[in-house]
Amino acid sequence: MSKRYLEDFDIGDPFETGEYAISREESLAFSRAYDPQAFHLDPDDAARSIFGELTCSGWLTAAITMRLIVDSNVMAAIGIIGSGIDELRWTAPVKPGDRLRVRGEVIEKLVSTRRAGRGTLRVRLLTLNQHDVAVMSQIANLIVPVAPAQPPEAT
Amino acid sequence: MSKRYLEDFDIGDPFETGEYAISREESLAFSRAYDPQAFHLDPDDAARSIFGELTCSGWLTAAITMRLIVDSNVMAAIGIIGSGIDELRWTAPVKPGDRLRVRGEVIEKLVSTRRAGRGTLRVRLLTLNQHDVAVMSQIANLIVPVAPAQPPEAT
Repeated sequence: MSKRYLEDFDIGDPFETGEYAISREESLAFSRAYDPQAFHLDPDDAARSIFGELTCSGWLTAAITMRLIVDSNVMAAIGIIGSGIDELRWTAPVKPGDRLRVRGEVIEKLVSTRRAGRGTLRVRLLTLNQHDVAVMSQIANLIVPVAPAQPPEAT
Repeated sequence: MSKRYLEDFDIGDPFETGEYAISREESLAFSRAYDPQAFHLDPDDAARSIFGELTCSGWLTAAITMRLIVDSNVMAAIGIIGSGIDELRWTAPVKPGDRLRVRGEVIEKLVSTRRAGRGTLRVRLLTLNQHDVAVMSQIANLIVPVAPAQPPEAT
């Protein structure tokens, strides 16, 4: 896999990742560790919640989204170092057994005036379930190296 | 713990959570599962990265932040259902062995005109390490029930 630079991405460049199936065990283990609320852990409590059934933690959806992007070659070629996330929205519940994938598009490229050699790629990410329903959207700001300057041609 | 409503929070209400220590094993296990990039897993690769040493996945920091908030009684009383996050920034690297805690403040309350009985609490969250350095900041949008209307007094 060859290294990619800010210059190698164009606005509108789309990409799509593979798929990730969430088991009931993984969902419960994640919730137990990081989001131990009764409606994520107990089917009876979940039935009385606004979701009406067991759902996954939104942070598991976020973590799986990251995993899918790391596994997709396009993005991995830059080393994915996020400086931040804007406008993250959980738009539909995710349930154990769901299969997620991510669709992304480059929406902006910024060159840093403060740090030579670095830029920011702004990528709109949509996480979809197996029914093509968007369960999470976000804009990720990724730190990306700028291509080294070419030496001037000999005259 | 008594149920709390949108009305029970005031703008500027501060809160602080307990502390969470990140072990090297937890950091590596999380990175292996959700952010398997060499600079999160391999000390030699990390030494060559922009961080210069092993760091935790930013998504582990986000997950631990959620856990700290769930464990804090103030927030747990509402049942923490996030609709989204704005302006999430990873402001300093988090390393295995770090101890994190969260400082929060209510910055805005919104009553839904679309869904009766529901409001949104906007909370600014700062995740700090044991040196009081902010490692992550974000604005969380939490779905909060509005207090049921009081029956009119008998005349």
